Amino acid sequence: MKNLNTALKTNYATKGFIMGKSELSVAPMHRICKKAGAGRVSEAAAKALATQLEEVGIKIAREAIDYAMHAGRKTVKAEDIEIASRKVLGK
Amino acid sequence: MKNLNTALKTNYATKGFIMGKSELSVAPMHRICKKAGAGRVSEAAAKALATQLEEVGIKIAREAIDYAMHAGRKTVKAEDIEIASRKVLGK
Repeated sequence: MKNLNTALKTNYATKGFIMGKSELSVAPMHRICKKAGAGRVSEAAAKALATQLEEVGIKIAREAIDYAMHAGRKTVKAEDIEIASRKVLGK
Repeated sequence: MKNLNTALKTNYATKGFIMGKSELSVAPMHRICKKAGAGRVSEAAAKALATQLEEVGIKIAREAIDYAMHAGRKTVKAEDIEIASRKVLGK
């Protein structure tokens, strides 16, 4: 039982199976912030960015699925993502 | 020399050091699309989504840096990301 608890804490919790963590991990968020010119970035900020980007990603993906289905395809292609991004991001 | 070429092809090329790949990898993009309800998602679509999300991420990060600096901080905090997201995503 102790082993299970340890496993839950060290493995599942950190991997976000309990907390419902974002699909995006924090390391690339830190890299994106550095690319944008940031000096220091807090862990909470990196997590917040991951959450925001996942939200945008799901919105784009949903639109892209609609476009793919409308074209009679089951596979989402790059062109669906492009058109969906333009719509969602208002480009 | 043969070894170097092989290494370049198999390792560097796939890891995108030559191509200037997105900071975001394709695996989480596939997961995001599945979460949105997608059946199949092409590799090119996953890459396109990664590119789009990185672009949005950099925009949000740039705004967040401005907010942090304006508040006299060098560290980007979660609150900077939140307000920057609202501005960039027009929420």
